[in-house]
Amino acid sequence: MVAMARALVCLCLCVFLYEVRGSYIPQDMNRTIQTLLQHYKISPRDRFNGRPVFSRELLSGRLETKMLFLGGVLDTYEKLIGQMLEQLPTPSPQTEMAQSRGQAASPASGARLSSAGTDPSGDVRTKLTYILGRVRKLKTSGFQEQERLLQRLQDLQEIKRDNLIVQSKALWELPWLYEEASSLSESFRNQRRRRRHTRPKTRPRV
Amino acid sequence: MVAMARALVCLCLCVFLYEVRGSYIPQDMNRTIQTLLQHYKISPRDRFNGRPVFSRELLSGRLETKMLFLGGVLDTYEKLIGQMLEQLPTPSPQTEMAQSRGQAASPASGARLSSAGTDPSGDVRTKLTYILGRVRKLKTSGFQEQERLLQRLQDLQEIKRDNLIVQSKALWELPWLYEEASSLSESFRNQRRRRRHTRPKTRPRV
Repeated sequence: MVAMARALVCLCLCVFLYEVRGSYIPQDMNRTIQTLLQHYKISPRDRFNGRPVFSRELLSGRLETKMLFLGGVLDTYEKLIGQMLEQLPTPSPQTEMAQSRGQAASPASGARLSSAGTDPSGDVRTKLTYILGRVRKLKTSGFQEQERLLQRLQDLQEIKRDNLIVQSKALWELPWLYEEASSLSESFRNQRRRRRHTRPKTRPRV
Repeated sequence: MVAMARALVCLCLCVFLYEVRGSYIPQDMNRTIQTLLQHYKISPRDRFNGRPVFSRELLSGRLETKMLFLGGVLDTYEKLIGQMLEQLPTPSPQTEMAQSRGQAASPASGARLSSAGTDPSGDVRTKLTYILGRVRKLKTSGFQEQERLLQRLQDLQEIKRDNLIVQSKALWELPWLYEEASSLSESFRNQRRRRRHTRPKTRPRV
């Protein structure tokens, strides 16, 4: 109950903030998400269980950190909506009949797609494709730099760590990278120290 | 041959740069890496094939980008050295005999551990553990902030995208996150524009 109340307060706060600062989200997109939520229906208990899909932890930090995390979030939405589209039944007469009987397209969990909606799967597909387009547009227009870095970080995960050639080459590259990392870490610390020192001096001028 | 020559020029340049700017890498660490390279021996053809394990692409960019990428590199080294330690044979009489006959600990690729070294596997273990300690120390002392962000980005990869509850909750969270991403992307663009405009003005004062 506490988690549900907290989530509701959070929702109200978000709505209030939209009103105050003006919205970047097109009305069409907002409306489409609301319609899709009728289709991807889950119980309030599941929705407000206090565990959001995307952590808000980093969204109060530095601009660069927030940008990179949100770049990752947009990337995840791209993959997630792609998966949702894949899970939709192909618009054959059989699947349409199944849907009208309330059977889920691909009930991967305890929750099931709602049968109450007037949305046939073709319409859900159109709506999801529209949302995917919006997410992609924002990602390519505002998060290109972050995308490149995220790709390189992902490449690091794919390094074949059990391969002896990779191990030997990595050992060989270590002195230069260690040197670079140590030097940059010092520059980063100095930069932050300078910023802390200059901030109070600039305030009285204003 | 061209790749090998390029790599050798790069090595000479690195050595020269160490000399010029002073080194952050302890001599002991450098020496240990050189000894380990005798043990993890591969052919010059494999070493200088023009494909480094860690891309240098992002190391000429902005400080924040470099820091995050190098945080990821240190994290990869931690896992890689962990894997190398796991692949070492346990110091039993059998494995010691096998090593003295030149058999590799775990030849994951075409290359093989060198039998020529005077290093028994226990000594390699000590040396790898020392290098691992150094990498960990640098990571925790200089890359804590980056580590937290990298962890959150990794969490994004583990989201269960085929789960209907996750899909529905993510759709529900999208308006707020889309709004946040759009707004931040605009702030980021404005910040960069302001920096570009203020830079030429500040130069003449000096």
